[in-house]
Amino acid sequence: MNDSKIEDVSLLDHSWEPLLKLLKENERKQVFVLVDSNTSLHCLPQLELVLENEQIQYSILEVEAGETSKGLEVCASLWNALTEEQASRQSLLINLGGGMITDLGGFVAAVYKRGIEFINIPTSLLGMIDASIGGKCGIDFNGYKNQLGAFQTPQKTFIYPSFLKTLPKDELKSGYAEVIKHALIADQNYWEELEQSNLSELPDVAILQRSIEIKSSIVAADPLEKGERKKLNFGHTIGHAFESYFLEKGNPIPHGFAIAAGMFCEAKLSVMVSTLLQESLEAILAMIDKNYQRLQIDSTDFTDLIELMKQDKKNQGAQINCTLLSGIGIATIDQEIEDELILETLKFYFRS
Amino acid sequence: MNDSKIEDVSLLDHSWEPLLKLLKENERKQVFVLVDSNTSLHCLPQLELVLENEQIQYSILEVEAGETSKGLEVCASLWNALTEEQASRQSLLINLGGGMITDLGGFVAAVYKRGIEFINIPTSLLGMIDASIGGKCGIDFNGYKNQLGAFQTPQKTFIYPSFLKTLPKDELKSGYAEVIKHALIADQNYWEELEQSNLSELPDVAILQRSIEIKSSIVAADPLEKGERKKLNFGHTIGHAFESYFLEKGNPIPHGFAIAAGMFCEAKLSVMVSTLLQESLEAILAMIDKNYQRLQIDSTDFTDLIELMKQDKKNQGAQINCTLLSGIGIATIDQEIEDELILETLKFYFRS
Repeated sequence: MNDSKIEDVSLLDHSWEPLLKLLKENERKQVFVLVDSNTSLHCLPQLELVLENEQIQYSILEVEAGETSKGLEVCASLWNALTEEQASRQSLLINLGGGMITDLGGFVAAVYKRGIEFINIPTSLLGMIDASIGGKCGIDFNGYKNQLGAFQTPQKTFIYPSFLKTLPKDELKSGYAEVIKHALIADQNYWEELEQSNLSELPDVAILQRSIEIKSSIVAADPLEKGERKKLNFGHTIGHAFESYFLEKGNPIPHGFAIAAGMFCEAKLSVMVSTLLQESLEAILAMIDKNYQRLQIDSTDFTDLIELMKQDKKNQGAQINCTLLSGIGIATIDQEIEDELILETLKFYFRS
Repeated sequence: MNDSKIEDVSLLDHSWEPLLKLLKENERKQVFVLVDSNTSLHCLPQLELVLENEQIQYSILEVEAGETSKGLEVCASLWNALTEEQASRQSLLINLGGGMITDLGGFVAAVYKRGIEFINIPTSLLGMIDASIGGKCGIDFNGYKNQLGAFQTPQKTFIYPSFLKTLPKDELKSGYAEVIKHALIADQNYWEELEQSNLSELPDVAILQRSIEIKSSIVAADPLEKGERKKLNFGHTIGHAFESYFLEKGNPIPHGFAIAAGMFCEAKLSVMVSTLLQESLEAILAMIDKNYQRLQIDSTDFTDLIELMKQDKKNQGAQINCTLLSGIGIATIDQEIEDELILETLKFYFRS
């Protein structure tokens, strides 16, 4: 496979040379590697071998796997560790993990001493095609997803597809939700290819490349999310509320499972308030139902869900703001939705 | 007085029109005003009168006065308040206070929902001529000054000199330390004027203007502190260590008092390792001793001070990095200093 370089993202096969070159060129004083308890076990050994072969010094920072680590307390413990090890502004943080690690590590780096450089090595499908690209980083706060954060671009993102072999099935499935989203908001042909694909298997390189291309190009056009980038929010207004809901209950679900359910609801909304055709809706719902179990939330909690949606960063004011589909492959941003319609959509998802 | 506009800083007399214009133009959904227990009493009433006259809705966020509020816990309580009041990305934060408030409020705004806009209305001399200009914001962490933070430029900084009348004498003196620094690093004529001035009195407009000009022009040349901006660090490597030392002891001192002592020590270093003349040194020490009492630190704590200096953000690696003077009005950045020389300088300050 050739290196496919889009923006500052490199899709690599097995070569660690570009990373080593970067580490040596910069004559770093200190290198830190952030992992979680999963990537520590399954991914770190490969990186350690490479660094040790080249006698590059590094320190490991480890946090528990899972969304609950993406909070202010864990940040404080990481800032504390960096302080204790006298990390300077010239230090470099390598984030080795899924979306939780790149979100968390990016934020930790963005704020420590007003910003140190960081590199992302995403190890999950979600990380590779979504979370590690585009400079958004952040943590959850008071039960709200990514309530605190920054826009900070990594110095470099290196993608090694072989790490996908280490992924549990649910994590792979979670990543595919964003792949589905990329097709739905930007590319009808890609959608048709996905309809023919088996989403229980590892993605082929063409899928990785296409999703990285879509994400990168949208982000490049609008890094600070003033317009174009909002297309990426399809499924995320309602999806984030689901994710926050289960996080608050102490029963977190994978991001992509929440987004799949969010896309289900927002596709329904797209028929109700935009121009998505009923037959397109049915194809979308079939794809989601084929790959994702329905979430279980009692209707007595629907008002709590709506409260969560009102806290969404995408809102302009009190009204809930969604990105919808006007057709498959065409997203339409800044759709303000009445609470009544959201309720109707929730009933449709949870009872249909 | 005419408006003196440098970058996005307006030095105003009494007119609130520019602020009101900005608030109305932007059709804000929500305005928040951050104050501390001092500015709540002495400055907020003026602003409230203006906002209420124009029927502009706002919410007040209040923290305790003093450096101890500039920490992660207070940030968390402010993020919590913003969340509870459903502040959106379109909300605006007005920071009404001294350097502590603009540093803290800037950071709170920079991180909340990945960044909301903020306006600075500095009420202290230090705030007007230093802290509120240049986009640095941040909080203290584990006893280290500004260990966490961001570079985030306020949408606008409005300077009302009349707020200086509300300042306690120590706070005024504290601000003058940065005024002295501006002269020492950039303008020998300005230094000679200051030698003739009474630093126990309110500064005249010419002093405010000249200091704002120096700070703004240095920052504009190098916003992210890669080179030129480091000139502003004169007195701050050793000065920050003094400040952190007293903060850790639970006995915080005004920033400028620490910086005055830091400039004393770093002027001495400037003779030892750079080209500052002995007679210039004596003029500097005389000015500082005339206006600032010597700090009291026991020599058994000198190694702790050096440890604090090693954590300084300005260091490239393990060695302590200072900005020194090669003459009055001329700063020289990135001077790496041996621990031995720092010790000698500390002995000179605390025993001479």
